[in-house]
Amino acid sequence: MEKIKVGVLGATGSVGQRFIQLLENHPYFTVTHLAASEKSAGQTYGEVMKSRWKISSDIPAYAKDIIITLPNPEVTKGVQLVFSGLDASIAGEVETAYAEAGVMVLSNSKNHRMVPNVPILSAEVNAHHLDVLQAQKTKGKIITNSNCTIMGVTISLKPLMDAFGLKSVMLFSMQAISGAGYPGVPTMDILGNVVPYIGGEEDKAEVEPQKCLGTVEAGIIKPAGFKISAHCNRVPVFDGHTVCVSVSFDKKPKKEEILKVWADFQGEPQKLGLPFAPNQAILYREENDRPQPRLDLETGRGMTTVVGRLREDPILDWKWVVLSHNTIRGAAGAAILNAELLYKKGFFN
Amino acid sequence: MEKIKVGVLGATGSVGQRFIQLLENHPYFTVTHLAASEKSAGQTYGEVMKSRWKISSDIPAYAKDIIITLPNPEVTKGVQLVFSGLDASIAGEVETAYAEAGVMVLSNSKNHRMVPNVPILSAEVNAHHLDVLQAQKTKGKIITNSNCTIMGVTISLKPLMDAFGLKSVMLFSMQAISGAGYPGVPTMDILGNVVPYIGGEEDKAEVEPQKCLGTVEAGIIKPAGFKISAHCNRVPVFDGHTVCVSVSFDKKPKKEEILKVWADFQGEPQKLGLPFAPNQAILYREENDRPQPRLDLETGRGMTTVVGRLREDPILDWKWVVLSHNTIRGAAGAAILNAELLYKKGFFN
Amino acid sequence: MEKIKVGVLGATGSVGQRFIQLLENHPYFTVTHLAASEKSAGQTYGEVMKSRWKISSDIPAYAKDIIITLPNPEVTKGVQLVFSGLDASIAGEVETAYAEAGVMVLSNSKNHRMVPNVPILSAEVNAHHLDVLQAQKTKGKIITNSNCTIMGVTISLKPLMDAFGLKSVMLFSMQAISGAGYPGVPTMDILGNVVPYIGGEEDKAEVEPQKCLGTVEAGIIKPAGFKISAHCNRVPVFDGHTVCVSVSFDKKPKKEEILKVWADFQGEPQKLGLPFAPNQAILYREENDRPQPRLDLETGRGMTTVVGRLREDPILDWKWVVLSHNTIRGAAGAAILNAELLYKKGFFN
Amino acid sequence: MEKIKVGVLGATGSVGQRFIQLLENHPYFTVTHLAASEKSAGQTYGEVMKSRWKISSDIPAYAKDIIITLPNPEVTKGVQLVFSGLDASIAGEVETAYAEAGVMVLSNSKNHRMVPNVPILSAEVNAHHLDVLQAQKTKGKIITNSNCTIMGVTISLKPLMDAFGLKSVMLFSMQAISGAGYPGVPTMDILGNVVPYIGGEEDKAEVEPQKCLGTVEAGIIKPAGFKISAHCNRVPVFDGHTVCVSVSFDKKPKKEEILKVWADFQGEPQKLGLPFAPNQAILYREENDRPQPRLDLETGRGMTTVVGRLREDPILDWKWVVLSHNTIRGAAGAAILNAELLYKKGFFN
Repeated sequence: MEKIKVGVLGATGSVGQRFIQLLENHPYFTVTHLAASEKSAGQTYGEVMKSRWKISSDIPAYAKDIIITLPNPEVTKGVQLVFSGLDASIAGEVETAYAEAGVMVLSNSKNHRMVPNVPILSAEVNAHHLDVLQAQKTKGKIITNSNCTIMGVTISLKPLMDAFGLKSVMLFSMQAISGAGYPGVPTMDILGNVVPYIGGEEDKAEVEPQKCLGTVEAGIIKPAGFKISAHCNRVPVFDGHTVCVSVSFDKKPKKEEILKVWADFQGEPQKLGLPFAPNQAILYREENDRPQPRLDLETGRGMTTVVGRLREDPILDWKWVVLSHNTIRGAAGAAILNAELLYKKGFFN
Repeated sequence: MEKIKVGVLGATGSVGQRFIQLLENHPYFTVTHLAASEKSAGQTYGEVMKSRWKISSDIPAYAKDIIITLPNPEVTKGVQLVFSGLDASIAGEVETAYAEAGVMVLSNSKNHRMVPNVPILSAEVNAHHLDVLQAQKTKGKIITNSNCTIMGVTISLKPLMDAFGLKSVMLFSMQAISGAGYPGVPTMDILGNVVPYIGGEEDKAEVEPQKCLGTVEAGIIKPAGFKISAHCNRVPVFDGHTVCVSVSFDKKPKKEEILKVWADFQGEPQKLGLPFAPNQAILYREENDRPQPRLDLETGRGMTTVVGRLREDPILDWKWVVLSHNTIRGAAGAAILNAELLYKKGFFN
Repeated sequence: MEKIKVGVLGATGSVGQRFIQLLENHPYFTVTHLAASEKSAGQTYGEVMKSRWKISSDIPAYAKDIIITLPNPEVTKGVQLVFSGLDASIAGEVETAYAEAGVMVLSNSKNHRMVPNVPILSAEVNAHHLDVLQAQKTKGKIITNSNCTIMGVTISLKPLMDAFGLKSVMLFSMQAISGAGYPGVPTMDILGNVVPYIGGEEDKAEVEPQKCLGTVEAGIIKPAGFKISAHCNRVPVFDGHTVCVSVSFDKKPKKEEILKVWADFQGEPQKLGLPFAPNQAILYREENDRPQPRLDLETGRGMTTVVGRLREDPILDWKWVVLSHNTIRGAAGAAILNAELLYKKGFFN
Repeated sequence: MEKIKVGVLGATGSVGQRFIQLLENHPYFTVTHLAASEKSAGQTYGEVMKSRWKISSDIPAYAKDIIITLPNPEVTKGVQLVFSGLDASIAGEVETAYAEAGVMVLSNSKNHRMVPNVPILSAEVNAHHLDVLQAQKTKGKIITNSNCTIMGVTISLKPLMDAFGLKSVMLFSMQAISGAGYPGVPTMDILGNVVPYIGGEEDKAEVEPQKCLGTVEAGIIKPAGFKISAHCNRVPVFDGHTVCVSVSFDKKPKKEEILKVWADFQGEPQKLGLPFAPNQAILYREENDRPQPRLDLETGRGMTTVVGRLREDPILDWKWVVLSHNTIRGAAGAAILNAELLYKKGFFN
């Protein structure tokens, strides 16, 4: 089987670097196209990134000699899919251009997320949302990731919603600095400090989960009807968003029912055996001080949602803590898993 | 006017050090008695603390030559009041012994907090709870501080409860490491990490506010009836507990009503002009990324509760962020303010 | 006595903010002129800084209503002195323009530091370097601060050089992130990390001390002849540069001789009783784990050089540790002390 | 080939945990014996470590069911080698007891390091020091690791010493908190701080390198004669000791000569193809801000010494920066590499 040629847009940024790291030796995909801004275009990825690579492993050898271009679907030569880590300021237009040129676009930006026929795809949660793609008029299709903050939360909610119905979700996040990219958060703002505000984050956290957990009706996605309130905070953690949630259900389950639902949960990625699928989509830890970024972030190579501290909530029904890796599960890894799902579903024949 | 002689129990610990720092040159009180464990007893405070003083200013000169004793009310020679920073493992018994010997005890420990005729005194919030002291059978009386986490929260709630009635309070804390004392939190557990658990903290946070905001009936304190749910987290911040709260009221106020209530709030300490009273008990900051420990902790010399980000909550009514200084407002400073209230109310005549 | 009118150039930056904070209620100087870039010019300092003030105390009331201008000596109306926190990219030209207009310039930038008739003034160390000012042809004179890293080091060396002669100085710094200004160091680069490189820093550290400790000959400053080697490192500390030094002398002193020289050291600021002069220019701490930024930074309101761990060096003669506050002693505070020295020496009659 | 049965002494501590992690699936060794203190003895490793395991990966399955015993060579049943992560307070006696019982002891403690017929073995540096083992009178032999701080330094010095001769080495360390074990450094001491002192560390750093780089004469190790001065500092880094060094040689080499010597360096582990040997013992990075713990720590799975910033020193000859992983290269990994060397050299036939 020949591998599918893919590109990475925004290849020099934080999310782009993760894509390039994670796609090394991928069984389905081979990276042949790297796009970035004028500052880098025309040079090899190796040259450009010599002092800008921020992941604690070397630049993969395969990427070093690729010559960076401007984002431009006409230069892609056989690329069928692009992973986009573009900034929201340009992602909207560029991603549309690639889709019009017939390329599948897997986007990490917010620009198209709330378009009714663009899925916020989370492969374990809503693989059936792929049904709306045919309603997109472009030859290539745009598929988005959710905001990194709610990624683990929606995964932990999905099987509970199916089993017990969701009424209300309060969420309080403690988000890693890598979520702001590079240079991102100035050290003077966060060293030994917390900042109880992340621009635009609560707005996204209060609408994306309902769409992600919504239903497909008449070719578009209809958001689920539960209520959400979000408090988003920045903390001095490198990678890993920790979220405390309090939830009320249509029918309040027992503790063991929740634990069983989580333990049994298998999404499409697990059923299809996708390469980036963690064995367990959701891992519940029994220790009373877990999950923690330092100890649990690498679970399932950063793709497992780690949950802990399930206990009754005196106001809503239950409360717990969710951890997910914001640049893997919440960004590059999730998009790759989505692309694997497309591959297995026959989108590249 | 002669100053009242006071003591500090647990003088070598974190809270004890704060007492000794803050009581330097106090207009009402003079420290003459320092008590600690056998390891330190018999030596001067200066000797013992040479390498154990953890506050970024020198040991006050007045304290250096005081000889530390074991906690023992019989050696106190005229001490009318003790500030106790004792550990919960011994605070119960020792504080009771002082009270029996006729000494007023201002405790930072949890041991007596939930006894119905022991106030959890927060001078701006519930000065009238002093009425229950007469029901204590000992000659000296025991008065406690609330847990540091809920201190700022209850202050921000007090005038709102009076004006609009409280139904439910969800709180989510990001707590400083100094709250765990010294040596306290190992660096390996918290550097670049958050820990979503603090032993016993949520239990305290879910019962103390109702007592603190309760009424005096038949000589004992009757807790207020609103519901609380707490998520308590440790973050790598030195001093300052930041708490996100979502609240529902009996009668939902408008935003400007809440802001006016906070701006107008004056507790007994402000009315009486107590030395440790901040000019403003509650300061609301308009910037969208405040309060933050680094920038707002010293407001009112660490005694002001700083509030920000008031916005509507999609599930409950309103949400906001509260910051208070955990070792000043949440511990030593609050106890000194309480003692000043006692002084002005004539408890030392 | 009427106060001298002064200005702050680069008033919105990190060093500018420190000047504005420290100059509140200064006995000799009153700030009437604030200059910054086009982005801020024309607005009041209070408006502009609402979300940019990064010091943990409020913007001083006096500064809030001053309207920021572009740096321009013609608009200064009676300003006799400017404190410059300008970036090196523009400091050279702008500072010269002010000097030509007759204004004394106290600069924190490197631009003029190595000009032979421009002193790198450190008031305790080389007050006699003011003698070279007459050789500057402009009506106003330019006086620079040393680089913040070497500030404390040169103070600790000065009395030892006078007493024993200096041969070689190895220095190894652990520098705070505030030294890079704002936004400065990205959190992704330094959280839980150290970076063994600061651009241009070692070059400055290996030439400025010799000039600072040099002699005045024929109207210019002749650098001292000892050798220096510097290793400069960035560490995740907010304020405070810690420097380990190993030193060899012309005549190796005994430990008690060094301690005595430090204890006895009085510079011009101490002799003249300047307002910003710390009582002790150099404080030696006996504890074996000091100085530390967290515990010792505020010594002498950030103006004292704190020294510790004096011990023999197996290669050179002696080694010790020096701490100084990089944005106070190493920048704004030092420049104010220098200005006070000018004032007392009659430069503003 | 049957695997050699080995034990881990101090199995519950920081170094012990690393041994257990790193020995999973080792090709030569199989862990059958875990020893710890009375608190843990009699329980399975899985039970005991449930909330004490501090490495960000799960406890290896093989270790979970092993029942911990007290350290006692009589219960070892066929164990031929023990890796000791025991604390210095008991390591001396216990390690001797194992050696007397015929077990090879690979120690991380300082207790036996300076005994003339006990090698401080660093497999790339001094494999020939194994010759002194026959002079130990016990049936089993004791072999120590060097202190973690000097591990990378001695590796970077070894080939240079052979080529150019060493005269003097100044070293300045910035050491990770994991070096102090668990609970180790209190957060209050190091968050946003540096501590310019680590008890006993400079003493070790000033004598162990000479022994490690020494020669074997008359059956004992004769230390090399160069001079060392060490400044040891603790910084808020999790893993990874960064050391700045300035060095003078008998014959000053050119820059390219040094780089060539490092690039060509192959120790016994590389020549023998030992499983834990990194491909490159020493990696020189060209970027001017490297090595850094965050980016370079995992080089060669934590076994490579990463070097950078080679430049001339104005006092001695050359200076550079060395990074090595303190709990892998500087402790558990180094001891395993040493054990592999013993295995290949036929010590277990």
